[in-house]
Amino acid sequence: MSRILDELAGILEQRKQADPDSSYVAGLYAAGLDGILKKIGEEATETVIAGKQGDRAQIVHETADLWFHTMVLLAYVDLGPNDVLEELGRRFGVSGLEEKALRNK
Amino acid sequence: MSRILDELAGILEQRKQADPDSSYVAGLYAAGLDGILKKIGEEATETVIAGKQGDRAQIVHETADLWFHTMVLLAYVDLGPNDVLEELGRRFGVSGLEEKALRNK
Amino acid sequence: MSRILDELAGILEQRKQADPDSSYVAGLYAAGLDGILKKIGEEATETVIAGKQGDRAQIVHETADLWFHTMVLLAYVDLGPNDVLEELGRRFGVSGLEEKALRNK
Amino acid sequence: MSRILDELAGILEQRKQADPDSSYVAGLYAAGLDGILKKIGEEATETVIAGKQGDRAQIVHETADLWFHTMVLLAYVDLGPNDVLEELGRRFGVSGLEEKALRNK
Repeated sequence: MSRILDELAGILEQRKQADPDSSYVAGLYAAGLDGILKKIGEEATETVIAGKQGDRAQIVHETADLWFHTMVLLAYVDLGPNDVLEELGRRFGVSGLEEKALRNK
Repeated sequence: MSRILDELAGILEQRKQADPDSSYVAGLYAAGLDGILKKIGEEATETVIAGKQGDRAQIVHETADLWFHTMVLLAYVDLGPNDVLEELGRRFGVSGLEEKALRNK
Repeated sequence: MSRILDELAGILEQRKQADPDSSYVAGLYAAGLDGILKKIGEEATETVIAGKQGDRAQIVHETADLWFHTMVLLAYVDLGPNDVLEELGRRFGVSGLEEKALRNK
Repeated sequence: MSRILDELAGILEQRKQADPDSSYVAGLYAAGLDGILKKIGEEATETVIAGKQGDRAQIVHETADLWFHTMVLLAYVDLGPNDVLEELGRRFGVSGLEEKALRNK
């Protein structure tokens, strides 16, 4: 699946060992589940505001923030973006296995 | 980037021509920007609830719903998931161009 | 404190005995905590959208919806609007006791 | 209606003249509409988290925060809590006029 999402997931995994004072992500883990969930609520609101503003660059920026913080949640519970992509694939008839098969050609 | 996200973006694009009564996504487009933004708020809240519940399957399910509805917003303003992935890549030192170059090897 | 909030709190209390099919509020109680919390997330998003739209009538409408659904949450956990008003009063130097004293004049 | 809400509305009105550096509320006004709306999204999420946690003191605390920030929005667009209470009253058959009449007895 997405190399960027995979790479980002790898970074999020590494940050579990990092000093909370030296890394934003490590600071989020240290804030715990509630801290991470608050960020998801915040970023969703900012996405809504950007959407309502009709500012396309801001929509991309806030959606990236929102996806990023959901990925922190996923990492926090030992899941990753591929779990989400497989779920999306299942719903739209593109299974994770088929996708892998296609890429390996 | 992710084949599933690309494929899903293609489906979202096609749905712009579909009958709102026959397609959930076409119904969302017909609801307009506010209708799409409301769904993003709803799905973000459901992600928070699932996270707080600590139900991993539900976290995946709700995050998929949230990503999906942000992708509907992106499509509504003629953007796509690659815009978000490139933004994430820029932030984490993996440029979209580098990523493409890596894949093409 | 507010007669309308008191009266509404009374109605919410009565609805705990009502048939979920006959009353919107009884239906919310039956949906349980998660159902009530989802509505709070929804109404908050709609308040943000109305605010961004700059539609004053809609701001009032959505804020009323939001306050209403937070009152359902309060009722669900056997609290009421006066608990919130006392908290607000404490923060702004108007204690609940003083307020009661003032009203009794 | 509620004396505390009225008093708080009065404070919010006064803060329109205050130095943004000296007052939290004046700082919110200075942040503008988007800043206020972000706070509403944040506080709604914190209410959901507190509700899910089942912490009654925290539910009161976060609901107070949420009502407070919606009141800042109302003040920002020259509305007040009585507009919301009248709306709630209309929906539940207690008109603002009747309420005023009752209080004046």
